[in-house]
Amino acid sequence: MDVTPLTQNSLLSRIKTPADVQRLSLQELSQLAVEIRQLIIQTVSHTGGHLAPSLGVVELTLALLKSFDLESDKLVWDVGHQAYAYKILTGRADRFNTLRTQGGLSGFPKRSESPYDAFGVGHSSTSISAALGLAYGRDLKKEHNRVIAVIGDGSMTAGLAYEGLNQAGGLHGDLTVILNDNEMSISKNVGALSSFLSRNLTKKWVVQFKKDVESILKAVPKIGGDLATYARKSEEAFKHFFTPGMLFEAFRFNYLGPFDGHNIEQLTKVFEQVKTLSGPVLVHVLTKKGKGYTPAENNPTYFHGVGCFEPETGLAKKFGPCGAPSYTSVFGKTLVKEAKTDERIVAITAAMPEGTGLDQFASAYPERFVDVGICEQHAVTFAAGLAAEGFRPVVAIYSTFMQRSYDQIVHDVCLQNLPVTLCLDRGGLVGEDGPTHHGAFDLSFMRHIPNLLFMAPADEAELQRMLVTALKHEGPVALRYPRGAGVGVELHDAPEPLPLGLGELVRDGEDGVIVAIGSRVHPARLAAEKLEKETGKKVAVFNARFIRPIAEQQLVELAGRFSKMLVVEENVLKGGFGAGVLEVLADNDALEHCRVHRLGLPDGFVEHGKQKELRAKLGLDMNGICAKMQEFLDAE
Amino acid sequence: MDVTPLTQNSLLSRIKTPADVQRLSLQELSQLAVEIRQLIIQTVSHTGGHLAPSLGVVELTLALLKSFDLESDKLVWDVGHQAYAYKILTGRADRFNTLRTQGGLSGFPKRSESPYDAFGVGHSSTSISAALGLAYGRDLKKEHNRVIAVIGDGSMTAGLAYEGLNQAGGLHGDLTVILNDNEMSISKNVGALSSFLSRNLTKKWVVQFKKDVESILKAVPKIGGDLATYARKSEEAFKHFFTPGMLFEAFRFNYLGPFDGHNIEQLTKVFEQVKTLSGPVLVHVLTKKGKGYTPAENNPTYFHGVGCFEPETGLAKKFGPCGAPSYTSVFGKTLVKEAKTDERIVAITAAMPEGTGLDQFASAYPERFVDVGICEQHAVTFAAGLAAEGFRPVVAIYSTFMQRSYDQIVHDVCLQNLPVTLCLDRGGLVGEDGPTHHGAFDLSFMRHIPNLLFMAPADEAELQRMLVTALKHEGPVALRYPRGAGVGVELHDAPEPLPLGLGELVRDGEDGVIVAIGSRVHPARLAAEKLEKETGKKVAVFNARFIRPIAEQQLVELAGRFSKMLVVEENVLKGGFGAGVLEVLADNDALEHCRVHRLGLPDGFVEHGKQKELRAKLGLDMNGICAKMQEFLDAE
Repeated sequence: MDVTPLTQNSLLSRIKTPADVQRLSLQELSQLAVEIRQLIIQTVSHTGGHLAPSLGVVELTLALLKSFDLESDKLVWDVGHQAYAYKILTGRADRFNTLRTQGGLSGFPKRSESPYDAFGVGHSSTSISAALGLAYGRDLKKEHNRVIAVIGDGSMTAGLAYEGLNQAGGLHGDLTVILNDNEMSISKNVGALSSFLSRNLTKKWVVQFKKDVESILKAVPKIGGDLATYARKSEEAFKHFFTPGMLFEAFRFNYLGPFDGHNIEQLTKVFEQVKTLSGPVLVHVLTKKGKGYTPAENNPTYFHGVGCFEPETGLAKKFGPCGAPSYTSVFGKTLVKEAKTDERIVAITAAMPEGTGLDQFASAYPERFVDVGICEQHAVTFAAGLAAEGFRPVVAIYSTFMQRSYDQIVHDVCLQNLPVTLCLDRGGLVGEDGPTHHGAFDLSFMRHIPNLLFMAPADEAELQRMLVTALKHEGPVALRYPRGAGVGVELHDAPEPLPLGLGELVRDGEDGVIVAIGSRVHPARLAAEKLEKETGKKVAVFNARFIRPIAEQQLVELAGRFSKMLVVEENVLKGGFGAGVLEVLADNDALEHCRVHRLGLPDGFVEHGKQKELRAKLGLDMNGICAKMQEFLDAE
Repeated sequence: MDVTPLTQNSLLSRIKTPADVQRLSLQELSQLAVEIRQLIIQTVSHTGGHLAPSLGVVELTLALLKSFDLESDKLVWDVGHQAYAYKILTGRADRFNTLRTQGGLSGFPKRSESPYDAFGVGHSSTSISAALGLAYGRDLKKEHNRVIAVIGDGSMTAGLAYEGLNQAGGLHGDLTVILNDNEMSISKNVGALSSFLSRNLTKKWVVQFKKDVESILKAVPKIGGDLATYARKSEEAFKHFFTPGMLFEAFRFNYLGPFDGHNIEQLTKVFEQVKTLSGPVLVHVLTKKGKGYTPAENNPTYFHGVGCFEPETGLAKKFGPCGAPSYTSVFGKTLVKEAKTDERIVAITAAMPEGTGLDQFASAYPERFVDVGICEQHAVTFAAGLAAEGFRPVVAIYSTFMQRSYDQIVHDVCLQNLPVTLCLDRGGLVGEDGPTHHGAFDLSFMRHIPNLLFMAPADEAELQRMLVTALKHEGPVALRYPRGAGVGVELHDAPEPLPLGLGELVRDGEDGVIVAIGSRVHPARLAAEKLEKETGKKVAVFNARFIRPIAEQQLVELAGRFSKMLVVEENVLKGGFGAGVLEVLADNDALEHCRVHRLGLPDGFVEHGKQKELRAKLGLDMNGICAKMQEFLDAE
């Protein structure tokens, strides 16, 4: 990989610590911005990653490092997917080519990676709360460093950001929030806040008021002095009012802005001013997502998080012939089809219409599609309201982000037994985005919720059947499926619902049984075949399908037939599917003659890396399952 | 119990459906308000309950029922603890004396209890999202009923309310949000929003601007016509601006108010006006918590949720000599003591300083105490920020409300391995508040989170030791303890930390072992004693102490010694502590000779009733545990 900026006699090669940035002239900073963009584009074209967000804040990052002293001041990036320039400038340029690769740099700020990463992130909208904690702690210690949170306008829609803002208003010490306003979150921004930020307040009386001021200015210039001054003042005040300042002033923030987020000189001046202020300050900067790279500027949604591409053109790199369709797209297409005949279906996403495969639905049924913005809590309670009106809301959210909705799932959906379908995309290991994004916990944090029907498909065709099952079910349902391509089976034209709480023996055997759930069924089957080929041992494979109600009777029968049962899941072992198997077998006194071992994610956070690499490392792919089963059979 | 309003020839006895309210004159409504208050005070003095919130909205409820048609219009009460008058007026007056008792009326709106309860509640800040779902569904069905959410100013501080507001701004159909502003949530209200609602905006230039208007009004009356009108207009506009209207108008709500929430006539006029408006409307009403009952007016925090009291005086009823101190108070006192020598301790609550026992801490160390308002998400991420600054934040939140922080616990605290102590008060069955408030899931939704040290004390003295253990631990910790009094053991003056991951055999035996966690240890011990007395069978009892790291080696040894192990917990069985026991025994191949049964909460939502009654019903008290163990020993 050719990373010109670092290997030549570049400015970048001289930046070892943030202090080195402070010594540069404005002209040199502009040159540095060019080099940083080049490095980011080249690297991400190989590794994939959050290109557009990071390109959008190169100048902002440089201005921050020029103005603040990162040896004592603390910077918290919201989400953190925009922190590539920051990583490059805080001593990680020489490892930047390892971005998002196993053992390499994380795609997000991480306390264990660098002392300059004041707070680890990945999920949206935590930065104000975290920064407030850092600032409050500083004040208790009577120290004087500055704390700065950088948050996008999209992240501002989440309740957590508002909770932070609300408390910050009371802070006496310094807290600077930089609102990075690029007029979109990941997808199109939504809600009142968005139009508010874009200054589209058009209430009649406001317009009238403004007209009044103007007409008086015109009509009574003769009054002179006082009135003219007053009128001018009132106009200024109005301008001030009908900008986003209004909201933040209401929260007792000192509001500055909006400023051009790509003008380093202006930004550094603003930051110098900020340093003279105390209490909470909000600096509003306007940036362009994908700035400086035409393909990303033209299609910031696509380049928000992108796979490998040709840097010259921005075109995605092709990897041989197309494989099986992704679970995401099968889900999206099936839902569109079902919605044709079932008008009760309403699809809901939290700022992820493309990522969850609901973009097609949005085009086909715009009235029945709702993007609530980055508001996972609201998405679920809103869906519960719709269900109470007789609708069949389908809420598609990545597993890791559904963590934000746990209380709403319990309290608003399941307690009331409302027919909301929760689609947990990206269940299991997601790969390069790492520990903040793995869907590692959903089987554990949802398995115990009463009334919930919880399924995980073994392949993309079963996902179709499970979706249909969900839509016909008179109660809450969760579906969990992995990131990436299906296994390549033929899809159903008219998928049939599944019998509830029954799994399927997909392979019979004599020497033991592998009970697998979801994405681990297919590799378990391959593992059994491999095992037979290599050792002659015949192992049965059971596709459990249901996390709840679990296939209790079938499992008890399997425990009666086999003396060894290996349960495989791509979820933490604690409280996961395997724990559920142990529970029903214990309840049925079926463990005395059947030993159960479990294979799943360890009791820890799994680092980033390719899905394939991580599964291999953790023994969750075909080879791992085969080895584990062989060891199990050989034991004793 | 003497419930005068119903037994005499009262107005109330004629109210069978909400339509009956519509037929009453304003004078009759005032009389009805008196009768309702009488019924509420008399009932709650016997049953306990949320007295002050419900007394505060009697007139508001009457005005709503007078103006809206509850046969088609839908009313969503936020939290729902203020809905007693509503219950009484919607066909439940004759059963109101069963409030919060087993089999009786719930303390909260509940869809299964009445068709007039449009959406079940219990947790705060869900009403706008739920109402928006109802309104969106109505619009899709092209129906025309009105949807009304009633939300307190305290509930407005939670992010979920903001998320709902933010999306509602875009709605074309009707949605009415009634902001019930009593200038406090459960305890004192906090944050910027609160001062905003109380109109304390005092920014210098605003004051100056207003002064300008006034001086011009005084100085140039001669200019006449246009300018005078303009000046008047601008003052009006200003008044409008510097009221809460500002915030809600920014969210594209039509703002009306503030109005006296105890003036039925005015309220009904306002609601008539609301019916002529479309799109989102916010009606701001000012009410007094505890209105009409002097003891509650004088001490609304105490009477927010109150036990039995003498209706004449408001004094709490005494039940014999004082028993053991509550877990809550032992926690509060121990923390105050520890904070004397450890300046790193900062205590955080989410609007519950009294309920969590942190009020003493707040008095002792005001600088190190933070009440963030009803913001459980923010509380945890803010604590993570403090921990990153070297502090030892202790976040005390009821178990059921900690459900809102699941993502923050995973992503902000545990992933970063930060030393935040999470205190889950009200773990297990809480009693009369019922299914929305039981801490029934915490062992399951937190047991699997990596890096977390998770303990549950067997008694109040062990809580002291666990708190000290937590404060010394270099990583995240959760403590879970029940609502109510301790078991009456002697407290420690200088509690010692516990060895990590080790339980304690509190009673030895021969015939089997009961492994209990937290509040079930004491009844398990009594059960074992009873069993021995009655049957001569000697059963050991193990206090497990740690949910994680679980006492693996000790459990394996117990499974080696005993052929029958009963695991007891006050948590849902699925994914709970017993599942954890099965996991480690399976991992150690220790299940072949030891049969494990589990006793805990069923796979469902537990209804309301007294703690004692519920435990008896579910077999989780001494008798239940004894019977279960006996049956287990007798089996086979």
